[in-house]
Amino acid sequence: MKLITKEEISNWFRQLQLHICTELEAEDGKAKFVEDAWERPGGGGGQTRVIQHGNAFEKGGVNFSAVHGELSESMVEALGIKSKEFFATGVSIVIHPINPFVPIIHMNVRYFELSDGTYWFGGGIDLTPHYVQKEDAAFFHSQLKNTCDKSDSEYYPKYKKWADDYFYIKHRKETRGIGGIFFDRLKEDESKSKEDIWSFVKAVGETFAPTYRHLVSANKVKTYTDSNLQWRNLRRGRYVEFNLVYDKGTKFGLETDGRIESILMSLPENASWFYNHTPEENGDEAFTLAHLAKDLDWVNS
Amino acid sequence: MKLITKEEISNWFRQLQLHICTELEAEDGKAKFVEDAWERPGGGGGQTRVIQHGNAFEKGGVNFSAVHGELSESMVEALGIKSKEFFATGVSIVIHPINPFVPIIHMNVRYFELSDGTYWFGGGIDLTPHYVQKEDAAFFHSQLKNTCDKSDSEYYPKYKKWADDYFYIKHRKETRGIGGIFFDRLKEDESKSKEDIWSFVKAVGETFAPTYRHLVSANKVKTYTDSNLQWRNLRRGRYVEFNLVYDKGTKFGLETDGRIESILMSLPENASWFYNHTPEENGDEAFTLAHLAKDLDWVNS
Repeated sequence: MKLITKEEISNWFRQLQLHICTELEAEDGKAKFVEDAWERPGGGGGQTRVIQHGNAFEKGGVNFSAVHGELSESMVEALGIKSKEFFATGVSIVIHPINPFVPIIHMNVRYFELSDGTYWFGGGIDLTPHYVQKEDAAFFHSQLKNTCDKSDSEYYPKYKKWADDYFYIKHRKETRGIGGIFFDRLKEDESKSKEDIWSFVKAVGETFAPTYRHLVSANKVKTYTDSNLQWRNLRRGRYVEFNLVYDKGTKFGLETDGRIESILMSLPENASWFYNHTPEENGDEAFTLAHLAKDLDWVNS
Repeated sequence: MKLITKEEISNWFRQLQLHICTELEAEDGKAKFVEDAWERPGGGGGQTRVIQHGNAFEKGGVNFSAVHGELSESMVEALGIKSKEFFATGVSIVIHPINPFVPIIHMNVRYFELSDGTYWFGGGIDLTPHYVQKEDAAFFHSQLKNTCDKSDSEYYPKYKKWADDYFYIKHRKETRGIGGIFFDRLKEDESKSKEDIWSFVKAVGETFAPTYRHLVSANKVKTYTDSNLQWRNLRRGRYVEFNLVYDKGTKFGLETDGRIESILMSLPENASWFYNHTPEENGDEAFTLAHLAKDLDWVNS
């Protein structure tokens, strides 16, 4: 049996990054990604690709990295592992669109390996609509469910719940958006080989572009008002709160002296905080707030 | 000897809040503070006063609170104390001005007491100019030094250093602004009575209004460009990063289920993040960045 190497995985991730950028540029029709290559002092590096001020996208980043080196004692303890020599590779995406009716999207697929042979995969895709629209939400979750079901019918319910629990802004008592799927520490077991899991992770990566293009394409031409933009910026403020207060990847990056501009590329160009903002009763904003909750069945909504 | 009671302290703080609001309204000349009274389910409450969309101030809050109740086991452990019954009162201020040449200001004065008689005072004032201006910085730090020196000539250097260390954005390797003074856990000892410390804390509170009015008055009429506004919003983004990632008061509030709108009142109405923004060499923005550092002597600058 052919073994899947870390080189094979990181090469595939790099190709995925380039493919997604091409797809997003086609959808935008104006702006192009600009690439910054960077090296990690401890070993490895990455390419950060940023798109700005397009027709559809205000600010978006598609990061690839493949880093290696020695974990600190505290990280070894935090992860509950034995070996210190690590390799990590992944693609991480956040897109902030201009039109308030186009949702923010986030995707991450990653692979982690230790010198003692331990490895795991992680990742997920989740959606943060400024305005929750049931049809879009049903489409988005159905796409994820289809991808999951091809690997294992238990994946979607399990990883959907994981996303609900992870993307939760505790102090606001609201989810960041309508969730999606989130998974971590996937490795081979009695029922799955490393190949099976790698196929699933690749399928998640390939689900991104067609799914998001459909959502952008359906909404980018909608007209909007200043009040819609205010609400978009307020929702972006919540996105900032989640990423700076709770997101584990962001925290890890800030604490381990990662490349700040690549980590905080996830933040929007503009965000707002209005004191004690309360949306009008029965309006689209109130509808959205009422649907920023865990355990909603979006596929059958 | 007359004992200083917690009622006396909280009454004085409430009067300070109202006095500062009157002063800020006079400086603004247009907007008025709106007051929200709130109760804490566990005991006590406060008044949050917010000013918005004025001539000088875009968004500002002057909070008063006096709360009491039982600390959780984890708080008792974190604070290294014995008693669980606590009382806490204070005034906390953050003002975000419109004009990029007017600095953001923050002040906090607070008193904490346990049922076993343990108590301490804490507080400070610090300044976050969007554009560092040496004359303003020298004035601001001289005002604080004068106030400190009236109590103890060791206070200013000690509390100035404390502010430099506290208001530090580690992941950016820059201070939030030009610092000021910060102190915590002040209580009586061989050289100071509780009265002495209370006098110092009151003097800090009274330093706020004349100091900030001078800085607002000197800068609020300056003309500015769109590029100055962009830089202001980028500096506000850093303010958001500090408050959500590092500020202990904010973290404590979010973790203990405090009143979110009062805690996050410190965030600006708008903030921006531009990917990899690098200011022009030798410009005012580069000058500012070069001065967001610890251990600068502002009084003699």
